[in-house]
Amino acid sequence: MGLRDLLFGRELRSSEDARQRIGTLTGVSLLGLDALSSAAYGPEVALVVMIPLGRESVRVLVPLLVCIVAILLVVFVSYRQTIHAYPNGGGSYVVAKQNLGARWGLFAAAALGLDYVLNVAVGISAGIAALVSAVPALHPHMIELCIATLLVLTAINLRGVRASGTAWRIPTWTFVACLGFVLLAGVYRALLAGGRPSPMIAPAPLPPAIAPLTSWIVLRAFASGCAAMTGVEAVSNGVPLFHRPAEASRALSVIIAILAVLLLGVGFLCRAYVIGAMDQSLPGYQSVLSQLVAAVVGHGWFYGLTMGAIFAVLTLSANTSFADFPRVCHFLAADEFLPPSFRHRGRRLVYTQGIVLLAVIAGVLLVAFQGLTDRLVQLFAIGAFIAFTLSQSGMVQHWRVRRDEPRARMKMTLNATGAVLTGTTAVVLFVSKFREGAWLTLILIPALVVLLQRMRARHVALEVAAQACVPIEIGDVAPPLVVVPMLGWNRPIENALRFAIQASGDVRAVRVVTEDAPLDELSARWETLVARPARAAGRASPTLDILRSDYREVVDPIVQYVHGVARANPGRVVEVVVPELFERHWYDFFVRNRYPELLRTMLLLDGDPRVVVVSAPWYLTK
Amino acid sequence: MGLRDLLFGRELRSSEDARQRIGTLTGVSLLGLDALSSAAYGPEVALVVMIPLGRESVRVLVPLLVCIVAILLVVFVSYRQTIHAYPNGGGSYVVAKQNLGARWGLFAAAALGLDYVLNVAVGISAGIAALVSAVPALHPHMIELCIATLLVLTAINLRGVRASGTAWRIPTWTFVACLGFVLLAGVYRALLAGGRPSPMIAPAPLPPAIAPLTSWIVLRAFASGCAAMTGVEAVSNGVPLFHRPAEASRALSVIIAILAVLLLGVGFLCRAYVIGAMDQSLPGYQSVLSQLVAAVVGHGWFYGLTMGAIFAVLTLSANTSFADFPRVCHFLAADEFLPPSFRHRGRRLVYTQGIVLLAVIAGVLLVAFQGLTDRLVQLFAIGAFIAFTLSQSGMVQHWRVRRDEPRARMKMTLNATGAVLTGTTAVVLFVSKFREGAWLTLILIPALVVLLQRMRARHVALEVAAQACVPIEIGDVAPPLVVVPMLGWNRPIENALRFAIQASGDVRAVRVVTEDAPLDELSARWETLVARPARAAGRASPTLDILRSDYREVVDPIVQYVHGVARANPGRVVEVVVPELFERHWYDFFVRNRYPELLRTMLLLDGDPRVVVVSAPWYLTK
Repeated sequence: MGLRDLLFGRELRSSEDARQRIGTLTGVSLLGLDALSSAAYGPEVALVVMIPLGRESVRVLVPLLVCIVAILLVVFVSYRQTIHAYPNGGGSYVVAKQNLGARWGLFAAAALGLDYVLNVAVGISAGIAALVSAVPALHPHMIELCIATLLVLTAINLRGVRASGTAWRIPTWTFVACLGFVLLAGVYRALLAGGRPSPMIAPAPLPPAIAPLTSWIVLRAFASGCAAMTGVEAVSNGVPLFHRPAEASRALSVIIAILAVLLLGVGFLCRAYVIGAMDQSLPGYQSVLSQLVAAVVGHGWFYGLTMGAIFAVLTLSANTSFADFPRVCHFLAADEFLPPSFRHRGRRLVYTQGIVLLAVIAGVLLVAFQGLTDRLVQLFAIGAFIAFTLSQSGMVQHWRVRRDEPRARMKMTLNATGAVLTGTTAVVLFVSKFREGAWLTLILIPALVVLLQRMRARHVALEVAAQACVPIEIGDVAPPLVVVPMLGWNRPIENALRFAIQASGDVRAVRVVTEDAPLDELSARWETLVARPARAAGRASPTLDILRSDYREVVDPIVQYVHGVARANPGRVVEVVVPELFERHWYDFFVRNRYPELLRTMLLLDGDPRVVVVSAPWYLTK
Repeated sequence: MGLRDLLFGRELRSSEDARQRIGTLTGVSLLGLDALSSAAYGPEVALVVMIPLGRESVRVLVPLLVCIVAILLVVFVSYRQTIHAYPNGGGSYVVAKQNLGARWGLFAAAALGLDYVLNVAVGISAGIAALVSAVPALHPHMIELCIATLLVLTAINLRGVRASGTAWRIPTWTFVACLGFVLLAGVYRALLAGGRPSPMIAPAPLPPAIAPLTSWIVLRAFASGCAAMTGVEAVSNGVPLFHRPAEASRALSVIIAILAVLLLGVGFLCRAYVIGAMDQSLPGYQSVLSQLVAAVVGHGWFYGLTMGAIFAVLTLSANTSFADFPRVCHFLAADEFLPPSFRHRGRRLVYTQGIVLLAVIAGVLLVAFQGLTDRLVQLFAIGAFIAFTLSQSGMVQHWRVRRDEPRARMKMTLNATGAVLTGTTAVVLFVSKFREGAWLTLILIPALVVLLQRMRARHVALEVAAQACVPIEIGDVAPPLVVVPMLGWNRPIENALRFAIQASGDVRAVRVVTEDAPLDELSARWETLVARPARAAGRASPTLDILRSDYREVVDPIVQYVHGVARANPGRVVEVVVPELFERHWYDFFVRNRYPELLRTMLLLDGDPRVVVVSAPWYLTK
C-alpha cells in the first residue's frame, strides 16, 4: 500500500471530485498537447510530401497552411458550439449517438479510439526517434526508451487529471514561449529586410523542382498537413474535467489560437528563409523547425532550449489520448458496449481501466513494430476526421430539432460547413493514403464496431437471463451432504474435516490412492482419529471412501465421485470442502500447491448447480 | 481431451509400465544421441582451437583423440560397474549421495542439471545454425526454428520414453551407417594409397603454422574435445527405463563402441586427407566433416544424405537431456529437494513436470540469447565432468565399503582411475575456459545447491508444522454465521442467498453502495423478495446491511465487514457465500467478471482461520 500511495498518490474519496477539476491553463496542457505539437510536425509532413517540388514547395506551403487554418477555425467554432450544447461531455460518440443513432455513435467511437491509440504509439516513437537521432548512442535502446516513456505517461495519468495537467505545464508553456519568440523575431527581421532576411545559420539549399506542380501532390501535402488538426476533439469530450464549461470553451480557444498563430508563423518564415524538408534518410538531416530556429536565432543555448521543448511536446502529445480515450471508453461502458469496469473510477478518480487498456495496446504496437511506427502514421488522422465529420453532422441534426432556439439556423450552418469541410478532408486523406495503409481502416473500424455491438448483445443477454424479480424460493432445507477430499492426513485436512463435521451430519471423506500416494495406515486409524471423536461430540461419524486412480490423476476421480454423490441424492446440496494451506511469503505464490485451486475450478466447471465448493483455509503461523 | 490424446497419445495406466520399457537398440537412440553427435563436433571443436597451428594441427589431432578415447573407455568401464551396482538408476546424484553424503549428491545433481539444460540450448541452436548456413533464406527465422524444434522435442518426449526412442531411430542409425561407410571407404583408400589418398574433392588447403606448438594450445584443444564425452552418464541414470539392467549395460557398450570408432576414424582421415578447421566467420566456410565426407565420396546424393543425418543428430542431441533431466529431478523430488510434482508420472508415464521445466528453461535461454548460444558453449561440459568425478569418487567409496566382495579391489582401482582422469579433465576444462565464462559455474552450481537445500528445508518445516497425529477435536458445533455479499439482485445472487438460508439460521446479506452501484429499491423490496419467503419456509429471515464505499472499492469493505463479524462472534465459523456466474464459452475466461475470484482470494489471504469461503455457482444454460 505504501508503494502504491507513493506511485499514484493517496486514494481519493468520490466527494473530492471537485478538487480534481481543472482550470483553463491546466486544461491546455492536459488536453492540448496533441494539437499544439501539430505546429511542429504539421508543416514538416506537408513539406516532406513536396520534396520533389524543390524550391517550389516553399511557395505552395503558405496557401496550404492558410487553408488548413481556415478549416481549423471552422472546426473550432463548431466544437465550441458542441461544448455549450453538451456540458456533460460531447465527444463524437455522444453527439453522433444522440442525433444520428447508436450505430453512427459506435462508428465515431471506433474511429476516434483507433486514432487515439495510434496517437500514443506514433507520438512516443516519433519523439524517441528525434531523441535517438540527436544522441545516436541511445539507438540500441530505442524500444526501451519508448516503453519507459509510455510507463511514465501511464503512471502520471493514473495519478489523476490534475496531476497530469500540472506535470506537463512547464514543457507546454516553454514550447509556446520559445517557438513564439522565434517566430516573432523571425517575422520582425523578415519585415525589416523586406521579406528576404539573411539567416544566422543558412538552411540547407533547396534544389530546383524535379517534378511538376500537380494538384495530386498538393492534395497529398494537404492531407498530410491535416494531421495538425487531430486532438481538437479532446476538449469537447472532456468538459466535465473543468470547473465550468466556460473554462473548457476558453481552453479550446487558447489551444486553437496558439496553434493557428504557430502554423501561420512557421509557414511565413519557411517562405522568407526558403526552408524546405530534407530527406530523413540522408546524412546531415535537419527537421524543418531545426533549420528555422537556427536561421532565426543561430546555434546558441536558446536553440537547444527551443529544440528540447519541441522534442518534449512531440513525445508528450500522447497525453491527450491518455486524457480522452478513457472517457470515450467510459461513455461506451455506460451504454454497455464495454464491461462495467470501464465506468469505474479508480483510486485517483480517473477511469483506470481505460488508461491501462490504452497503455497495453500502445505498448503492444510499439513492441510489435519495434518502435518504428512509420507504417502506422499512414492510418493516423483518418479516424479523427471520420469522428469529426460524424460529430459535426450530429450537431446539424441537433440544431434541426431545435430550430426554434435563437440563432439555431446560423449555428446549424456553421456545423454543416464544419461537417462538409472535415468530411472532404477525410475523403482526401483516405484516397491519398489508401495504398500506404489507409485501406486497413476499412477493416479495423467496422471490425471494432461489430466487436462493441457483440459485447453489448452478450452483456444484455446475460443480464436478461440472470434477471430475478420474483421472490426467492427456499425449497427443501435438508442439511447438505458434505464431501471432504483428502490427500493424506495433516492439519489443513483435519481443519477441513472439523468444519465439515460441524456443518453437517452426513460427511464423506474421500481418499485418492495413486502410485505417488499409496494406501497407508490412515484407514486403519480412521476410527481413532476421526470417527470416535466425532461421535463423542455428538455428531455422526464421517465415512471414509477410497478411490483407486490407475492413471495417477487426483482431481478427476474426485470430480467423478462428487458427480455420483449428487446424482444419487437428488434435491440435496453437495458441499465439497477443499482444504487450503496458506503461508505468508511473497514467493509462496510461485511454489504454492495448485491442487486445491485446480480441484475447485474443475468442480465448478463441472456444471452441477447443486455442488458448492468451500475453501477451508489453514494458516501456517511461524 | 481429443486433442490431448492426438498430441500425446492416450493415457496410460500405471500397470502398463512394463510395456513402456525399452531394449538395447531403442536405448541407443533414446539416450545415446548426445554422445553420438560428439563424433561430429568433438574433432571440429578441437581443431578450431588449433587453427593457429595450421597444417601442424592435423598431426596433433590423432594423439589427442586417442587420449580422449582412452579416457572415454575408462569412464565407460566405470559406468558399466555403476549400472550393475545400481540397477534402479545410478546417476551421479544417487551414487554421490549414497557414498559421499547428501551435499556432494546435490553438487553432482546441480552440475549435471546445468549441463543438461545447456545441452538442449546449445544442441538446438548449433543444429539450426548449421541449417541456416546451408539455407540462408531461413536466417531471419532462426529463433522461430529453434523454438519449433524445442516444441517438437518436448511433445515427442511427453508422448513417453518408447515413442521418443522410436522416433529418433531412423536419424540415429542413418547417421551411424553413413558416417561409418564414409570412414570405412576413406580408411580403405588411405591404406591402399600408402597413407596419402587423393581426395574426390580437395579440402581447403591448410596454411603453415602462425603460432608455435605450445602445451597450452594442446591443453585447450583437449579440453574442447572432451565435450565429446558428455552424455555418457545418461544410460547409468536411466537403467529403470530398460527391460533388464543388462540391456542398459549393452546399450552403453554400443554407444561407446560407435563413438570411439567414429572419433578415431575421423582423426585418422583428417590426417590422411590433411583436413583442418576453417574460420566460421569467413565466406566459404565448411565444417571439418563436410570437407571429410566430400573428400571421400564427392558431392553426390550420398554427401547430402550423410550431411543431413549429421545435422539431424546434432539437433536431436538435446533429446538425451529430455530423457535424463526429468529423472534427475525425480530423484531430487524423492528426497524432497524439489516439489513432489516432479515425482509424479504424467499420462504417458514420464515425469511431465521435469520435461516441461527443461523445455521452459531452454526456451528462455534460446530467446534471451536470440539463438546465438556461442557464449553458453563455454559453460558446457564442465558440469558433466564435475558430475562424472563425483560419481566415480562415490563408486570408489562404494567398493571400499564392500571390500570383501569378489574383485572389489580391481573395481575400486578402475573407478579410482576414472575419478582421477575425469577430475583432471574437469580442472583442465575449468582453467582453460575460465575467462570465457567457466567462472560462471563457480556461482551457478553453488547457487543451485543452496536453492535445492532451501527448498527441502522449507518443505520439511511445512510438513512438520502441518503434521497431525492426535485425534481430531470437534469443539463447539454452533451453526455457522453466513455472510452473502451482494452487488445487486439477480439469479446468481438469489441462488447464493438460497443456499445460505438453507445452511444456517443466521444469514447476513451485505450490500456495498458506490457511485457505480448506487442504492436502489432493493432495500425497500427486501421484505417481499427475501424475508417473507424465508420465514414461510420456516427459516429465520436474513438481515440486509448496507456499506457505503466512499473510495468506490467493493472488495475491501466486504473483507472489513467479515473481519468485524468474526471478531464480534468469537468461536463461531463465518461462512462467506460468493455468488459466481458460469457460462460455457472458451472466451468466457477472458471476459469473465473477476470480482468473485478477487473477493475469495482477499478473504482467504486475510488470515482468519474461522472464515471459510463458499463458491456458489449459477450456470447460464442456453
